[in-house]
Amino acid sequence: MATRRQLDENFQLITRRIPEENIHGADIIHTALAREGKKPVGLWVTSPTGKPHIGYLIPLLKFADFLRAGVEIIVVLLDVYSFLDNVKYPMEQVVQRMHYYRFTVEAALEALGIPSKNIKFIAESSYQINPRFFFDQCRLCTLVPQQAVRDAWDRSYNPDMLAPMLCPGLQTLAEEHLDIDFQFGGTDQRGIFEFAERFLPQLGYRNRAHLMNPMLPNLYGDKMSSSHPPHTKIMFLDDEATVEEKVRAGYLSSDEVSRNGVLATLRDVLIPLSQLQMERWVGGTASVERVGDTPTHDTPLSSLPTTTTTTTTTASNDDADHGLVQPTLSLSYPFWTPSSPAGTVFTFPPTPKPDRESDGDSDGRDHRHYATFEQIMHDLTTQTLRADDIVAAVAAALNQILAPVRAAYRGSRAWRAADRLGYPEES
Amino acid sequence: MATRRQLDENFQLITRRIPEENIHGADIIHTALAREGKKPVGLWVTSPTGKPHIGYLIPLLKFADFLRAGVEIIVVLLDVYSFLDNVKYPMEQVVQRMHYYRFTVEAALEALGIPSKNIKFIAESSYQINPRFFFDQCRLCTLVPQQAVRDAWDRSYNPDMLAPMLCPGLQTLAEEHLDIDFQFGGTDQRGIFEFAERFLPQLGYRNRAHLMNPMLPNLYGDKMSSSHPPHTKIMFLDDEATVEEKVRAGYLSSDEVSRNGVLATLRDVLIPLSQLQMERWVGGTASVERVGDTPTHDTPLSSLPTTTTTTTTTASNDDADHGLVQPTLSLSYPFWTPSSPAGTVFTFPPTPKPDRESDGDSDGRDHRHYATFEQIMHDLTTQTLRADDIVAAVAAALNQILAPVRAAYRGSRAWRAADRLGYPEES
Repeated sequence: MATRRQLDENFQLITRRIPEENIHGADIIHTALAREGKKPVGLWVTSPTGKPHIGYLIPLLKFADFLRAGVEIIVVLLDVYSFLDNVKYPMEQVVQRMHYYRFTVEAALEALGIPSKNIKFIAESSYQINPRFFFDQCRLCTLVPQQAVRDAWDRSYNPDMLAPMLCPGLQTLAEEHLDIDFQFGGTDQRGIFEFAERFLPQLGYRNRAHLMNPMLPNLYGDKMSSSHPPHTKIMFLDDEATVEEKVRAGYLSSDEVSRNGVLATLRDVLIPLSQLQMERWVGGTASVERVGDTPTHDTPLSSLPTTTTTTTTTASNDDADHGLVQPTLSLSYPFWTPSSPAGTVFTFPPTPKPDRESDGDSDGRDHRHYATFEQIMHDLTTQTLRADDIVAAVAAALNQILAPVRAAYRGSRAWRAADRLGYPEES
Repeated sequence: MATRRQLDENFQLITRRIPEENIHGADIIHTALAREGKKPVGLWVTSPTGKPHIGYLIPLLKFADFLRAGVEIIVVLLDVYSFLDNVKYPMEQVVQRMHYYRFTVEAALEALGIPSKNIKFIAESSYQINPRFFFDQCRLCTLVPQQAVRDAWDRSYNPDMLAPMLCPGLQTLAEEHLDIDFQFGGTDQRGIFEFAERFLPQLGYRNRAHLMNPMLPNLYGDKMSSSHPPHTKIMFLDDEATVEEKVRAGYLSSDEVSRNGVLATLRDVLIPLSQLQMERWVGGTASVERVGDTPTHDTPLSSLPTTTTTTTTTASNDDADHGLVQPTLSLSYPFWTPSSPAGTVFTFPPTPKPDRESDGDSDGRDHRHYATFEQIMHDLTTQTLRADDIVAAVAAALNQILAPVRAAYRGSRAWRAADRLGYPEES
């Protein structure tokens, strides 16, 4: 039986970096942590629309905390919800996009050092086609005024159609039918989470907790969304040059941190990831996963498992003969170095002059170590750090994270097929 | 193979008493009639809300025509639709009301001389809980603007709730999933039928024909509806005195035929039934079903069959010892008599004076035989027929039809249980 202190530590892990106003139902999480015989279960859903972007790194990073706190994580790939919401793409194409999303999420998790085999991936439709779900959906619809759906949900692509009206209810029922304890999502889920908190108890089911992570703004100040055009966000499969270019353009787009996608990436993705690596370093290697083994993703996805854990497949030699698989990568640099002072969360490397060998201490400048994002902002304001430093460091860090994702894509025939079939207009 | 003449006769049977503007897709019916290897299939749905009233006799009478034309008739008892539409009664209660409706429809059919065992009764939910229906419903919802539902359907009890928005789609999908050729319903179904004609082909399914019967006005001029208060309509289980009272009050409510529920009953129920009996008489007894055997209805309804024909149960002795089962009844009087002139559709019996024996020709007045409703109206206008004649004849005729229905109710423990559980507030 866990001690009170362990329970509290696990609660802190689950909720860290989540502002207090974005935590609904802390008591429900405490109860689930203290429960004997069943792990706390957390749900994260993703709706396969346009291709995923690096905004996903924020919630995926939280998975590391959840796993360390002993949470069982279920990722639901929303095939039905996405189909109802877009009212445009045929179901066959949505299913291909669902596969594409799963490959991307798995590869991104691996790139973050989070073993994707520890996550359950479930296709939404798999738990919806049965009498209990059918009647629960009917019952829910009799409780819900149409206006409540509109209040919950301003994100529908086609708000005048009938199909999107069903989406908040489907997501609400997932909480009961997957028997989860908390649902985790971006702050854009606030309306749907409140919808669930309002109606799930009316159905006679227990309420679930809700946690909301901050959303990454796009490179031009709005929310980063998979439905927005590619130049507004960094995609998981962008190549190195594209990442550098987008980072530079995005950094120059706004001074204001909350509307500057590059600074927000530094604050909400790179620094937390750096902290996570530091904790792993300090905590020993037991919980540290090797990054850069570039797992291939040729699991047949035509039939997603319903409740069984997805195991990462053994590496195949698909495409290996093309020499495209990346060599082992290290994420230890440029986030921090073993010689960084204690408490460092981000280290800027020396910026070499173009005409000299980059052998470390060029230009008379040294590694600059930072313990907080606020210190970085201070040095930026006082021009101790330059725009070039930020752009170079963020682009390099992102490229380090994305390299194994790109490699996994190149190494997976199934992922490439899902790309071709899910996004034919881009092929 | 049926001759052209037989096909035409069957089409005439199917469509008679249906105004031309209420027939959509005549060609579809012709095609189904000419098809080899499969009977034409007709669908009639009924939504179990308040208790059924005698307005149902109009469509049920058409069943005789359909059967004679070789049509297979499916009656769908709308458990899900009704639950979604009312958003008030729990599903368990709706299911009991569904049983109540089935008992009533079966008994009414028998009272009209139409063997209910020749009709398939299906619970709506039985064909809805499967993957194909699930995905078809999703697909349909992606095609339907919310406004199209509102346009189709002004009858919802709770138009601002989410649940009723699903009803027109469910009824549309029934046409495909039961593989029917035409759907038959009242003129109040026009919007839903047009909805089906608009969206079923968009799903890639063939269009179905639609036939609309006239609606019986209630006793005070509006549409007779199961959701209106009892005094506005004659119920299947009203006792004789109540029927007489309601007919008298209803007759006096309006001079205008289209708003006079009693005259409309005469025109649209009693005269067509009389014609039907005449045709059976002329056509021999082969297709004539005995009325008055007061079948009991103790078929276990907890599990309605999905696609098998419901067989009428063997008579049980339930309640027989209470002496409540009616003796054999004859429907030959007062609609017409064997001695009526050819072409008679309604015969008014002599009206006896209260102080004399009713032995026929009292008061110097004879049987008055009519070949058309218009002749009756003419004589009413010229006061050759009196209000008392109409009231007495219509009440007597209705009481003859309703007597076996009442008897069946008294003879069926299951029906009475469905009454108690489906309408507890009336118990």
